[in-house]
Amino acid sequence: MKQNKKALVVFSGGLDSTVALYWAMNNYELVETVSFNYGSKHNEQEHAHALKTCKKLGVKNTCIDLDFMNQYFKSDLLKSGGEIPEGAYNADNMSSTVVPFRNGIMLSIAAGLAESKSLDVLVLGNHSGDHTIYPDCRPEFIAGITEAIFQGTCNNVEVVSPFCNITKTDIVKLGKELGVDFALTYSCYKGGELHCGKCGTCQERIEAFQEAGVKDPTNYI
Amino acid sequence: MKQNKKALVVFSGGLDSTVALYWAMNNYELVETVSFNYGSKHNEQEHAHALKTCKKLGVKNTCIDLDFMNQYFKSDLLKSGGEIPEGAYNADNMSSTVVPFRNGIMLSIAAGLAESKSLDVLVLGNHSGDHTIYPDCRPEFIAGITEAIFQGTCNNVEVVSPFCNITKTDIVKLGKELGVDFALTYSCYKGGELHCGKCGTCQERIEAFQEAGVKDPTNYI
Repeated sequence: MKQNKKALVVFSGGLDSTVALYWAMNNYELVETVSFNYGSKHNEQEHAHALKTCKKLGVKNTCIDLDFMNQYFKSDLLKSGGEIPEGAYNADNMSSTVVPFRNGIMLSIAAGLAESKSLDVLVLGNHSGDHTIYPDCRPEFIAGITEAIFQGTCNNVEVVSPFCNITKTDIVKLGKELGVDFALTYSCYKGGELHCGKCGTCQERIEAFQEAGVKDPTNYI
Repeated sequence: MKQNKKALVVFSGGLDSTVALYWAMNNYELVETVSFNYGSKHNEQEHAHALKTCKKLGVKNTCIDLDFMNQYFKSDLLKSGGEIPEGAYNADNMSSTVVPFRNGIMLSIAAGLAESKSLDVLVLGNHSGDHTIYPDCRPEFIAGITEAIFQGTCNNVEVVSPFCNITKTDIVKLGKELGVDFALTYSCYKGGELHCGKCGTCQERIEAFQEAGVKDPTNYI
């Protein structure tokens, strides 16, 4: 049973936010998406994938340029930063890929956009596996920004984080149930045409499919 | 006695944020400023004034373009919006000038910038007279965003809102004590070279100087 609400999904084209989009379409009467071009090495590939999924689902996308992040922020995920680390998806290995307060910035802009468009709900696809690495994925951050956005918007926009306490493996299982076309999702932090299979996010993606017992349709180099 | 912390002031060049800047310079060892070009009708005039104050005080300014706000957001404060209302600075009259979640967006970007620059504190010059009009100026919003930014940044950036519970009249009195050059501040929402004296913010500015018993150096049309 869908809620009579309009949702805006923060949608990168990655695996998590694609499943979040399918989840939102099952839960809300109307769904739109917003994407951000913030100068990450994989932004172009991610967004091309995002647009394919939007086209497949008939969903509207607004893409917002945030050039200042690549210019002023420090992170190896950005084009202005160093090399993407290879190996395990854990805090030691991936900390250089933190983009300072990225989710706070994206959710805040999405909140303003939602108020402008009279949308009721923001959906973010963060999950529990991100907590140790990225402070702006943790439940304490989500609680604070949820309160800030509810109180700070004229129409009391609600933040919903459906995967905050589940793992990427659970997300793959849910995506399978929801009929997600995983081949249209993109995860690799290196941003090449094919997934590298070696960076932390590729490793995490491979493991999630294996643990979920779901066939991984990704072509790795 | 200054705290051994580095502060980033959200600085528009308006009266409130200029006093906040002087306040911060009295309270923190190092102070920088960040401004936003978000397409308001008075952005150019505000920022020109901001740069004059920064030059006078020897303070660094980073100006960040947020073109998407003028493009996608609905507000009469924006160039893409309707006429600026004239008359009293109250909720009925000024509600069309709300820019959806503007302070949330500015503080979030400032948080990411502060983390990238290893700064400790964000200072915002919102005051109690804004509460009824702008939801993203209220104490409940400030509490939520403070928690979100503290929890969501690797260096636990702190948000400080020194004027949250005082009036603009009190801010003028404090500015006088701190030696603020009020002639270098700009308030008019219409964005002309001279303050119009008729819009809500000009009215509020005139009243604050009168009530504070401080000479208003502004040249109104």
